[in-house]
This record gives sequence, structure tokens and C-alpha cells, in this order.
Amino acid sequence: MKNSVGKFAKSVLEINLDRISQNYKILKSYLRKAICGASIKTNAYGIGMMPVARKLFAEGCNDFFVANLDEALECKKVLSNNNIYSLNRSCDYSLPKVVNDSVISLNYNEQNFSASGEDGYEKLQNEQVISITEVIDSKIYSRNPNIYILHGVNCIDGAKAAAEMGLTPIISDLSQLEIWNNYGKKIGKKLAAVLHLETGMGRLALQKSDALQISTNSELISNVELTYIMSHLSCSDEINHVMNKEQLNEMQEYQKMFKNIPVSFSNSGGIFLGEEYHFDLVRPGAALFGIHSCHQKQTPFLQVVTLKAGILQKKILEKDQAIGYGATVSAKRGDKIITLECGYGDGYFRNLSNLGKGYYNNKELRQIGRVSMDMIIFNANNLTEEEFNEINYVELLGDNINVNEVANCAGTIGYEVLTSLGSRYKKVYIG
Amino acid sequence: MKNSVGKFAKSVLEINLDRISQNYKILKSYLRKAICGASIKTNAYGIGMMPVARKLFAEGCNDFFVANLDEALECKKVLSNNNIYSLNRSCDYSLPKVVNDSVISLNYNEQNFSASGEDGYEKLQNEQVISITEVIDSKIYSRNPNIYILHGVNCIDGAKAAAEMGLTPIISDLSQLEIWNNYGKKIGKKLAAVLHLETGMGRLALQKSDALQISTNSELISNVELTYIMSHLSCSDEINHVMNKEQLNEMQEYQKMFKNIPVSFSNSGGIFLGEEYHFDLVRPGAALFGIHSCHQKQTPFLQVVTLKAGILQKKILEKDQAIGYGATVSAKRGDKIITLECGYGDGYFRNLSNLGKGYYNNKELRQIGRVSMDMIIFNANNLTEEEFNEINYVELLGDNINVNEVANCAGTIGYEVLTSLGSRYKKVYIG
Repeated sequence: MKNSVGKFAKSVLEINLDRISQNYKILKSYLRKAICGASIKTNAYGIGMMPVARKLFAEGCNDFFVANLDEALECKKVLSNNNIYSLNRSCDYSLPKVVNDSVISLNYNEQNFSASGEDGYEKLQNEQVISITEVIDSKIYSRNPNIYILHGVNCIDGAKAAAEMGLTPIISDLSQLEIWNNYGKKIGKKLAAVLHLETGMGRLALQKSDALQISTNSELISNVELTYIMSHLSCSDEINHVMNKEQLNEMQEYQKMFKNIPVSFSNSGGIFLGEEYHFDLVRPGAALFGIHSCHQKQTPFLQVVTLKAGILQKKILEKDQAIGYGATVSAKRGDKIITLECGYGDGYFRNLSNLGKGYYNNKELRQIGRVSMDMIIFNANNLTEEEFNEINYVELLGDNINVNEVANCAGTIGYEVLTSLGSRYKKVYIG
Repeated sequence: MKNSVGKFAKSVLEINLDRISQNYKILKSYLRKAICGASIKTNAYGIGMMPVARKLFAEGCNDFFVANLDEALECKKVLSNNNIYSLNRSCDYSLPKVVNDSVISLNYNEQNFSASGEDGYEKLQNEQVISITEVIDSKIYSRNPNIYILHGVNCIDGAKAAAEMGLTPIISDLSQLEIWNNYGKKIGKKLAAVLHLETGMGRLALQKSDALQISTNSELISNVELTYIMSHLSCSDEINHVMNKEQLNEMQEYQKMFKNIPVSFSNSGGIFLGEEYHFDLVRPGAALFGIHSCHQKQTPFLQVVTLKAGILQKKILEKDQAIGYGATVSAKRGDKIITLECGYGDGYFRNLSNLGKGYYNNKELRQIGRVSMDMIIFNANNLTEEEFNEINYVELLGDNINVNEVANCAGTIGYEVLTSLGSRYKKVYIG
């Protein structure tokens, strides 16, 4: 839910957009012919739809997958020329500030982060902004991105909104197809769509009998232009899982059913299963954001998110002391204790209680006591006196402890670590 | 993080503000003399700072506890007369819509939910709005609420902002006290503050030696008016925990140290430990929102949040089928399968995979397969054909399965269930 913007927050969430670009380039380097799209659903895996979409668009990505129509409309808006220039005209944005030479502070209302074009550029230069993707190459906005809606459109109002904004629903149900096709008829246009076909995920897809109906009854798609057929791998994180090959076989069968229609099949993990899994368009998400998408220990992808939790209080205990709710742990007189501005209300999972780790000066610090809603406590005994005096943050996520390690520790996956990141941090986008 | 507003969302989060009022009344009924404040930190436990603060303010609550300065400024803003009237003048708000006789749809920009005063009332009446707390009694806004900042203020800029807005920092550190006292000196004013004293929580509080210094050196508080001393119970959820009495004893000791200064001590759980724990001001949070705050099975508090997850797809499987990522479960040909618009990206914890429950028509439905980022799957075999045809949502949170039950199932506490609620739902505030 909406929360206060971190104007006075001590905890800083750094998001390295340049590394997302690099991860995108790495992914492309694995592809021979396939187009590399990007999955930026769920607010770009919690990282921020707007800056991520713009960065990837500037990087040449033209195919964006989002979860639902609301996200698709937002994606369209942030990649749309008109919107950017209208915002420039009104100057209705909070200007980002330079934090250091290469960092732009984004204590801004995200909806208004739209500086671009000539006016915006000058305005921003006056405010000493060093680099903004949109400024570097505002011409990119003349391209028209493909925005795919994974949940499709499910009502006439939705179809209208999607059609007007040139969005592409992914159809996983005959009723969705009917809505979309009828809307195309109504406005006398062929509307782009993707068919999502069941190959083994069992989640949201057309079953084979539906697919057969569509492939044999052209009336069902009289006003639809099928730009892709697609499916989704359920076990691509396990390279040798039997499901991968089974799903591939199914997809190849569907390819025969829908001749000459391009195919989108692979998520991040699928890209590493070999070229036969690539088909025409891949749609990685996890790898872009530094999440492990397969069980290989080593992946070439860079960490994107750094969380530096600010310190609310440092103290040396003057007596033995129970720590936190439930008094689950006791600290000793003389222990160095640090209370951080971060809790499960900020997405630092409560089940990291007494398990979490943090870093300062390459030294590991251990979290103690239960995670509270707005605070966590660390023992800092292994810092020197000098370090204890100077320390002003603990790295909870970053190059020393990456999103996958935090996930392991919390018994989940990196995806959930990112999508759970709270909204009270001061956010800093790099690049 | 910020996310798309659920304009086209099928999943609806209903928040019953009337029940929050009732819970507040129930809490007050346990108090003989103590004032009943409210903890509305972390965006009112994820429920929405603005509507909750206003509802409680209208109910007579005048003491609001928030985590940090950003939240305090937001709280001040939403409870401030000036803000409301200036918004009325510009009519800069999205008008809420009536969904049915007693429900106001809040597909609005939360920041703009500020209709009130005479103008606003008429405007809203024209739009057929049935009830809005602020409209019912706009006079409440002549009161001046006390807003307490649990993390205190930690820099001069922060002190300036807090002082200008009449906020009350809770001091847990001598350096915070110095900043606040110095700022008072600078502007020639005595500034209200609360001292947070260590009694056994070990988290964020002044240790005894600090308290002693303050109590004996009036220079440290020359420009501070101590409105309360406070501490925080660590084990109030366990009525017989030895810590409760120990902390109470400590608090009583501090009372002697700071004679004639009122005391705030109890959270929700503390209120049920007996009147000696109440002192002058209590600050419940959990109980207001229907969260169990003690180990008693029966609590009198009403559920506040209902999550009705919308259905993206219903299908009867045409063959045996693996379900979800990792193919952790197999469903049978003929099984009734429902895919819901809700996932861990919406705060439905991934560790509810193959454990979650939902309700429709008082029938329990079981979640199957791993929770995905944007979707979950339920088996609906125990619905009749008629029910399966008509079902359009599954209750994931509400009167049939409350926040504490979901928490138990996920291995956490109700607090984290609420603070994790995502931002993609269509939100409906009742009352």
C-alpha cells in the first residue's frame, strides 16, 4: 500500500539501473536470433516500473511483459512521448537532486519523474543533474514499445482501454478472446494478441482443446492479429528437470498447430536451457534484477539492489539485557548494540529473526532478537571501537549479501525479497 | 514500493473503518482513567494512514503514534484543517463513488482523499456519496492532535520540520535530546517531547544512566516540555510472562525519577495485563486492526480487512496436470481449478504454497502449487457445479479466515500479514 516517501529516512535503497542494462546485455549475448524482451511485472519486481522500463527502453528493449492492465497502462504512460512532453510543459515534477557525481536522488513523486525532452533537459541541467537516461537519448521515445498483458483483458472496459493504448493482451481463455475479438469488430480493426498455451504450468493458459478450436475456427480470431503464441516453463530453474523437455515438446506441437506464428517461450531460466528453448522472443525478468533463476551457483548477472539500513541508535549495554519482543535473546553488559531503521513493515521478513546478517567494512554483523515492524537490532561486537564510532549504516542487501542469499536465509526466493521491499526507504537510482 | 492503482483489478481489499471505530471503543471500555491513543505507524499497519487516522480522530482519539518523521508529517497533513479546506477550494480530488448503499469505492489517489467542509460536503452529495467520516462531523478538525514520533528526530532539518508542524518526538538517545533542546533554544520555545526509557525491550530507549542524567541536569531539557515518559512491553502477548512484571517495576522506578510527568506504557497487549499497566496514556495498534495481541484464544476485536481475490480463470482439467512452479503438485483430469489474481507480489506469502486456504459460500477451498508472483491456484472440487459457475472471488482474508489464522498458516504474526498487503488491489473503505 501507499506509504510515506522517505524524505527523512535514514535507510537508503540504491537501485543500480546501469547494472540492469548490463544484465540485459548479458542476456542478449546468449541469444542468436531471438528478440530479448523484459518481464517488468509487479512494479518491475518491486524495483520501480518507471525507471526500469525507461532504462530498458533506452537500451533497445521493445517488448515489455506486465501482469495486468493497470500495470500495462502505467508502462505505456511512462514510455510515451506525449506524456513526457505534457509533463515538461507544466513542469509538474519534483526535480531530482544530485547526491554525488553519479547518483540521482529520487526523493520524488514517482508519477512525476518524467523530465525529458529539450525543456526538461535544460531545466534539469540547471539543477545540476548529471545523467538521466531519458535525457541522454530522448529520441528513443519515437519507438513504439510492445506491452504485453499477462493476465489479458477481462471486460469490455478493459478491452477499450487496452485497444486505445495499443496494448497487447495475452489470451489464456476463450472468453478473453471473445471480448477482444468483439472489440476489434466493434471498432473495425484487427487487434494484436498473444495466445498463452498450456504446456505444463497448469496456471493460466488455454487448454489444448481451446487451442484447437482457435486454430480451426478463424471466426474466433476474425479481428485479432496473433503476434505470438507463448507458454511458460514451470521448472526452468532446474536444468535437468524432466518438465523442461516435456514442455518444449508441447510447444513444438503447438507450433505446428499455429503455423508461421512467432513463439515466445523462455523466461530467464529458459534462456540457459539451450537455443531450442529460445524461439523468437524471450522474456527474462529475474536475471535482469540479479535474482538467481537457475540452480547454478554461478550466474553472470549483477546485483541491482543495495539496502543500507540507517542507524537509529548505537549503544554499549550498561547491564545484561533481553532484546526485542518475546525476549528471545539476551545480550551482555558491554555488548555493542545497533538499532536499525528497518523492519518487517519495510519488507525485512520477520522470519529473519535471529538469522539475519549485515555487513559493514566487509565485516559480518548478526541480527539479534525478533524483527520488529519498524526496527531491527544487530550485535556489533566484532567492530573495532573506531568502526563502531563511525558506522552509520549496515548493508542488508548488496554486493556483500545478495538478494539470493537473503532469500535463502529467509526460506524464500529472491523474487519475493525484491517484491516485498517497502516504501519508506530513501530511494536512489543510479544510472 | 509504489505500484499501479487497482483501477482494473479484480481483487478487492475491503477495509472496514467502522470496525476500527468499534475496536477503539472496546479498548476504551477497558480503561478507567487512561487516555486511549492509537499506534498507526507503518501506514496504519498497512491499512492506510489517511482513512484510519481520520476515522480515529473523528472517534475522539487525539494521540497518534507513528514510526518516523515522514509518517508524522503525513499524519499531520491528513488531520489538518488547512489542508482539507485548501483541497476543497481547488476541488483537487478524485471523487469517491458509491459501490452500494454503504460502501465507498476508494479508487482514488489517496493523497487527494480530502473531501470535507461545507463545500466538499455538497460536492460529494451531488455525487451521491452516502457517508464519509469527515463529512459527518467536520468540526472535529478544530482539535489539535498529538502526533508522537517513535524514532524521534535525528537531525536539525528534522527538528525544524517537526517543530514547525507541532509534532512530538519520542527521545531515546541523548543526542536526539540535544538536537531537540537546541532547536527549542534557537527558536525560543519549549518544545514538547516524550522520553522513551529502557525497561526490558532492549531496542530503542534511553538507558538508566541517561535517564538519571536527564532527571538531574535541568540544562539538558531547558527548552523541552516533557509531556510523557514512556516504555514498551516486550512480552505483553504472554500474560504470565515474567518480563511484564519486571518491566512494570522498572517503569514505576522511573516514575519516581520523573515526578509528576505522565506515563505511557501499554500497547494492545498491555491493556489486558490489568489497570496498573495503564498509567496515563495507552497506545494500542494491533487490537484496532483485529490482530491478536495476546495468547488468549478469544479476543473481542473485530476483523477489519477482507481480501476477496478475483478470479482470472476457472477451468475443468481435460487431463492430469502438474500445477505451478516446480510442478510440486499434480491435479487430476476433471479437477476444478481456479486461478486467482493474487500472489506474493501482493503480499500473499510464498510460504503459503500448498498451505493456503480460502472460502466461498462458507466452503473451504485449498490452495495448490507454489504461490506465484501474480497468481495463485485453488482446487475448487468441493464446490457444486452451480457454485463453480457463479463463483467470482475467493475470500483469502476476512470473517471466515482472519488475519491471525493466515499468519499462523504462514508461520508469522497478523502484523506482518497486514503490513505486507500489496498495492494492486482495488481498495474499498467501508465507513
